Amino acid sequence: MLNFSFHNPTRIHFGKNQIRKLSHEIPRDARVLIMYGGGSVKKTGLLDKIKIVLKDYDIGEFEGIEPNPSYETLMHCVDKVRNENYDFLLAVGGGSVIDGTKFVAAAALYNGEPWDILKTFGSGITEALPFGTVLTIPATGSEMNSGSVITRHSEQSKLFFTNPHVFPFFSILDPELTFTLPKKQIGNGVVDAFTHVMEQYMTYPVNAHIQDRFSEGLLLTLIDQGPKALKEPENYHLRANIMWCATLALNGLIGSGVPQDWSTHMIGHEITALYGLDHAQTLAIVLPAMLTVRKADKKEKLLQYGERIWRITQGDDESRMDDTIEKTKEFFHVMGLKTRLSDYEIPHEGIDAIMTQLGRHGMVLLGERQDVNPAVCRKVLELCY
Amino acid sequence: MLNFSFHNPTRIHFGKNQIRKLSHEIPRDARVLIMYGGGSVKKTGLLDKIKIVLKDYDIGEFEGIEPNPSYETLMHCVDKVRNENYDFLLAVGGGSVIDGTKFVAAAALYNGEPWDILKTFGSGITEALPFGTVLTIPATGSEMNSGSVITRHSEQSKLFFTNPHVFPFFSILDPELTFTLPKKQIGNGVVDAFTHVMEQYMTYPVNAHIQDRFSEGLLLTLIDQGPKALKEPENYHLRANIMWCATLALNGLIGSGVPQDWSTHMIGHEITALYGLDHAQTLAIVLPAMLTVRKADKKEKLLQYGERIWRITQGDDESRMDDTIEKTKEFFHVMGLKTRLSDYEIPHEGIDAIMTQLGRHGMVLLGERQDVNPAVCRKVLELCY
Repeated sequence: MLNFSFHNPTRIHFGKNQIRKLSHEIPRDARVLIMYGGGSVKKTGLLDKIKIVLKDYDIGEFEGIEPNPSYETLMHCVDKVRNENYDFLLAVGGGSVIDGTKFVAAAALYNGEPWDILKTFGSGITEALPFGTVLTIPATGSEMNSGSVITRHSEQSKLFFTNPHVFPFFSILDPELTFTLPKKQIGNGVVDAFTHVMEQYMTYPVNAHIQDRFSEGLLLTLIDQGPKALKEPENYHLRANIMWCATLALNGLIGSGVPQDWSTHMIGHEITALYGLDHAQTLAIVLPAMLTVRKADKKEKLLQYGERIWRITQGDDESRMDDTIEKTKEFFHVMGLKTRLSDYEIPHEGIDAIMTQLGRHGMVLLGERQDVNPAVCRKVLELCY
Repeated sequence: MLNFSFHNPTRIHFGKNQIRKLSHEIPRDARVLIMYGGGSVKKTGLLDKIKIVLKDYDIGEFEGIEPNPSYETLMHCVDKVRNENYDFLLAVGGGSVIDGTKFVAAAALYNGEPWDILKTFGSGITEALPFGTVLTIPATGSEMNSGSVITRHSEQSKLFFTNPHVFPFFSILDPELTFTLPKKQIGNGVVDAFTHVMEQYMTYPVNAHIQDRFSEGLLLTLIDQGPKALKEPENYHLRANIMWCATLALNGLIGSGVPQDWSTHMIGHEITALYGLDHAQTLAIVLPAMLTVRKADKKEKLLQYGERIWRITQGDDESRMDDTIEKTKEFFHVMGLKTRLSDYEIPHEGIDAIMTQLGRHGMVLLGERQDVNPAVCRKVLELCY
């Protein structure tokens, strides 16, 4: 096991009707800005319910945080926060709204050009406004971590930052809020959480048995509950398990004391920034290709994953690894995702554009051994067609 | 899955040489009281190393916190803290030292009779001194939770309290510090952690798949690594896995959203208070008897545990449950623990004494359904001989 430090101060309130806890968690004298995306929180009545719980508070609203939240939109929000003196933010939505809220929380108090927050991966943040979240889409884990991914359209960049000051103070996780999600969002969410686990698990063994077991527990649960959740949107327990899995997949725990990869994510971000695919759609394409190209590097963990998750124990190592990757791909298909760039009609020249953007963003030596160089990335992308 | 709230603010520094982090974590102007047990932290040189890291600090020492830390001893420490104005405590030791430190942290600022902290299970605590820990024995999980168990010899009581104010600010977990532990302490520690998992896992199903998988991951790891750790005291990875398992077994995570039992612990506490057995020794005796008596109540989870942990899939339900309990007992034997009260020459009349103390401490309806009444407890104790 590698040395690690772990600290996660976010308070979780999980279950039915937990939004009533909002009034326990937000200081009574706070000036609260509720931040959300499109109209779904209005349509479902969630926003009204929240306003009833916060009826004694001084509240404002910021609407319109888009999927892959944009710097351009969020800077309007930063202005609003500064001009109207909000001192507590409440994100109501999925990972995009929460990521956007993290950016606004830090940028509102940032001394300097806010885009520098992204350019320095968050290292320059020294303070942030406190904020909480009401999660409506289980997927990114942003509700219980200190990371955020922001897109700047003017330069087709999708970059991440992380800083301990942007852990949510609290997050409300009510699985019933996911009953009305379109199937596509559930499919995307499960694949996103699954890939988060894989980025931290599918590397090389370091005798971190308990991290392996926890990761495998998350994968098994997602594989078991995900397809059922597509068919039974109002099954509370299925939605609860998926929601809690997605949070635990990226709250720092399973990644503590182990090597981490994240090359699939880095390539995926460029695909989204260039071609607008959903985040999970890019992961479902890149991950199987990445595993195939790097079979030799990941051999021990691939065989372990194949055996413990997919019960693949027959055949030589090579064919077991191939079968394992095939099973992973099939699971993504079952969740409704495609696994090729060509499925989205992205031309073959896209590879050059993606490679250029990776270089521009300093993403030249990726992976758990920093050996996923441009040649390897290109090979992976070739295999994505 | 049941509704839950989860919050664990303790910062963990895990791995080799992490005690150097002490000077990052403790405020430079703090007046620090180092609290420890017998002389082992002196003999191993750990105390000297800590003093070197804290050489610029104003420090004092309190020695002599015993296993099953006593109210009597700890009240001397409370006096010292109050008289000498310490404002930061540092526990160096195992669960007993940490539990004792939690009590002192709360009692030093408590308005009223400190024993009331135990009588009210901690509910009256409104503040506590900040403290950190350097863990030397993996077992209780006290290094990352807000619980504590204190013994008062004058009335043969061993009682627990819990309060969010007594989460450690930080804990240093260096597996190398466990290399010098006697075998008995490793055996006890593994059985203690194992039983903590069982108290939260072995109840009835509530569709909490991920909690089940995490619990099973901890059990599998303890079963795999525990016996090897007895044989290879200086194998870093074995000790690291056991240490991290013991912490995760009782940091609130696997118990969130599921029913919890704890009847084995409640009976075990009385046995320790009356007859001085080690905590883990009592658990190894009571748990198998408890599972046997309550087979019908725990049937679904016992069968799941038998299948997933011990690969028991043959025979009818009854014989599978019996085999499963037998395997559990055998594991305790392998770890060097005995599983009968008669192994410790406790007379059969002990049952009456234990039953009386349970009644005196209000422990009359125990277990995940509060149906482990005195008649059931007596049956369990009968089976412990």
